[in-house]
Amino acid sequence: MTVIDQITAAIGQDRVLTGADAAPYGKDWTGAYTSTPLAVLRPANTAEVAAILKIANETKTPVVPASGRTGLTGATLAQDALMLSVERLNAISEINVEGRTATVGAGVILSNLHDAVEAHDLIFPLTLGARGSAMIGGLLSTNAGGSNVVRYGSTRGLCLGLEVVMADGRIMNLMSALHKDNSGLDLRNLIIGAEGTLGIITAAVLKLQPKPRAYATAMVAVSSLPDALTLLYKLKEATGDGVEAFEYMPRSYIAKHRQLFPDATGPFDTDYDVNIMIEVAATRAQDAITHPDGSLPVVSALEETLGAMLEDGTVLDAIIAQNEAQRREIWKRREDAGEVAFFGGVFVNTDVAVPLDKVAAFEQMLTPRIKAIDPDAEEVIIAHLGDGNIHHTSYISRNDPEAMKALVAAVEDVVQELGGSFSAEHGIGVSKLDTMKRRKDPVALDAMRAIKAALDPNNILNPGKVIPPA
Amino acid sequence: MTVIDQITAAIGQDRVLTGADAAPYGKDWTGAYTSTPLAVLRPANTAEVAAILKIANETKTPVVPASGRTGLTGATLAQDALMLSVERLNAISEINVEGRTATVGAGVILSNLHDAVEAHDLIFPLTLGARGSAMIGGLLSTNAGGSNVVRYGSTRGLCLGLEVVMADGRIMNLMSALHKDNSGLDLRNLIIGAEGTLGIITAAVLKLQPKPRAYATAMVAVSSLPDALTLLYKLKEATGDGVEAFEYMPRSYIAKHRQLFPDATGPFDTDYDVNIMIEVAATRAQDAITHPDGSLPVVSALEETLGAMLEDGTVLDAIIAQNEAQRREIWKRREDAGEVAFFGGVFVNTDVAVPLDKVAAFEQMLTPRIKAIDPDAEEVIIAHLGDGNIHHTSYISRNDPEAMKALVAAVEDVVQELGGSFSAEHGIGVSKLDTMKRRKDPVALDAMRAIKAALDPNNILNPGKVIPPA
Repeated sequence: MTVIDQITAAIGQDRVLTGADAAPYGKDWTGAYTSTPLAVLRPANTAEVAAILKIANETKTPVVPASGRTGLTGATLAQDALMLSVERLNAISEINVEGRTATVGAGVILSNLHDAVEAHDLIFPLTLGARGSAMIGGLLSTNAGGSNVVRYGSTRGLCLGLEVVMADGRIMNLMSALHKDNSGLDLRNLIIGAEGTLGIITAAVLKLQPKPRAYATAMVAVSSLPDALTLLYKLKEATGDGVEAFEYMPRSYIAKHRQLFPDATGPFDTDYDVNIMIEVAATRAQDAITHPDGSLPVVSALEETLGAMLEDGTVLDAIIAQNEAQRREIWKRREDAGEVAFFGGVFVNTDVAVPLDKVAAFEQMLTPRIKAIDPDAEEVIIAHLGDGNIHHTSYISRNDPEAMKALVAAVEDVVQELGGSFSAEHGIGVSKLDTMKRRKDPVALDAMRAIKAALDPNNILNPGKVIPPA
Repeated sequence: MTVIDQITAAIGQDRVLTGADAAPYGKDWTGAYTSTPLAVLRPANTAEVAAILKIANETKTPVVPASGRTGLTGATLAQDALMLSVERLNAISEINVEGRTATVGAGVILSNLHDAVEAHDLIFPLTLGARGSAMIGGLLSTNAGGSNVVRYGSTRGLCLGLEVVMADGRIMNLMSALHKDNSGLDLRNLIIGAEGTLGIITAAVLKLQPKPRAYATAMVAVSSLPDALTLLYKLKEATGDGVEAFEYMPRSYIAKHRQLFPDATGPFDTDYDVNIMIEVAATRAQDAITHPDGSLPVVSALEETLGAMLEDGTVLDAIIAQNEAQRREIWKRREDAGEVAFFGGVFVNTDVAVPLDKVAAFEQMLTPRIKAIDPDAEEVIIAHLGDGNIHHTSYISRNDPEAMKALVAAVEDVVQELGGSFSAEHGIGVSKLDTMKRRKDPVALDAMRAIKAALDPNNILNPGKVIPPA
């Protein structure tokens, strides 16, 4: 019997797609990676995932776990491998309002979870552009970020419990809803972000947060990046840590945005170097109650902080959204980032992180190196400034693979010199394997290899991803 | 050459204590564990730690890392082993005010770090009774908790970067100050809480927080535990997540406290079942500015929340500290917990966690089981209610090892039935090895064993701790 026959016998014909039925799974969101899996498996429960892995392990057949396939690093690329889609593990089995947790299958689509908890005046705070397709399994496996990490942390910080099927098909039950647990090695955080190389996440217990009552949204021009960091800290203080977005858009981003979207205006009559998009949430009831004079406290807190900094000259200009339409316009400029970073010509794009106070140094050190490689290169940055995460794009004059490689290396060199990371939120997949090999601490790499070999001795779980060979 | 001779040759005689010089290191805070190490090693830098481990690994000599030796589980017990004290790695090498991080050696005493950062209006929020002796290395290695986890998380959540010497003496450099980093497996969180079984932490980058401007402190009697959870959520909302302590003291605790401290009064004229000690911090400047009418906003927020719940009958009584002396009196009752839990007679004490909404069920399920074992047993609970962490003590009529074993099992049975953990914040060490073996998910245990064997193949790092043999 072939491995596919064995699996079909174990979990049923309707769970196994091959040929034309499997073809749609060969594509991911980026379009850069095309898979031709041996078969696409769609188990309907954890026991079926376990049965698949037991057979795969015995036959040493590679298995690539997949969920929404919206990742950017090729982590679900499946060649000569089974693709295991968790899409049917899509039950939200419990929303515990008192304990503020949700118990969900790995195939739950993020926006479905958003909708389900909102009915209880709660939120699952993780959000990103792909929320209508991305699933919990993939979000956990990549420790996904997004624009509100500054307030709520990455996915890792939002997960209390996990169910994981290990390489040999055994089920590891870490499905607790505990805020404190010191019972041995931290396997939960090891599995989160491992991109399916150590086990397949089948279910999770997630932390929920109270739904904010109101928002204040603004575009602000600041005189320098250090002043922007001061603004962030002042705003965090003034709002009781209510800053949900603090997005840096330098002059280059605003210009490129206007170029690509000719209808787009502003944000200001004058162009500034350092523009910040801010959103502050009012979680406190009293901050969301309009005063008799028409003011909303969450907006007043933002206004007062900005006012003081306008006076001392560190804030140059500011526009606060007065209604939902203006808020949407401010957000649209941010959400156009995909287009601004990917569709302005031939480009090289990176996802890096530096310490919070090193973003200015990053820019200053990088520009001359970019110009040395391609004097005509146009740099565009969008950054989650609140967590030091920079998306840097170089638009270059021609499709020159050598120059593109050199540009990536230039960005990564600067990041390394500043004590940063070459992968902030997108992960490694296959696209950053070479970088891992060259730039990650070699002792850490060896530790990863040892752990991988210990937990997946037959190397069947998403082989060839994340951890480069020695 | 003996192993001690080799190490002495490598790092110098003054780093190596034996005989009477080593004797003081044989004792820990609990007094329950007495070590007779082969020698006590006091390396002065990371390179010396590396040199020691290289020799220990080649000679297969066990090494027990130690810092303040204030743990409660015997994790630093050293028999037929070298004890490696990190006490000389005590430099605070950087306080980065802009980036809000501190770079510290593993031997920095917690209260020294508190003092050093306070000068910059920042805090390192982790705090606990042993702060004058406990060192960063041990706090990270045990993922220590404390009373303000409800606001700031356990130690794991306060650490951005680590330097670790691995079993073979190689130095793993994860010393970044990044808020986002998805570059491969999460080794940092794996090392944190591993109690020195996977590597020896020599330095760390820690996250700092702004120093609160003022506090509001209260004792509150609530009609039930579910109402206490409602109060917690309302207070978090009203104060912008400013709740720093939310400590449950049932009637039993108050009574035992009064019995042991005859001078202690209150907290109320009437005795209630559910008493909560609350401290709320004002991080927002405006909440710490006294109004013309004499009111302090952080106190007003607490008063208003309590007032509304007094009206609807869910809060029964409340006393808010009006000055520092009253605040200290409230805190003293909490800080007497060590005496209340350990010095009221023959006792069995546990450190467990349950989901936030299951503390009431824990009490209801446990009492009849305790009474069945010892009808005269007296239960005393003190709990970090905001994170579901319960310290349960049974005072029993006689020193009966069988009954004591049965009482521990009764507590752990209830915890397991409620989806909880038998170790919330103290870790495993040697004291909970049997429990680990019996109660931890067997697949998780096997994964821990595999990881341990992969990273420490000669089993030299704190052998016999945390992970029970198969």
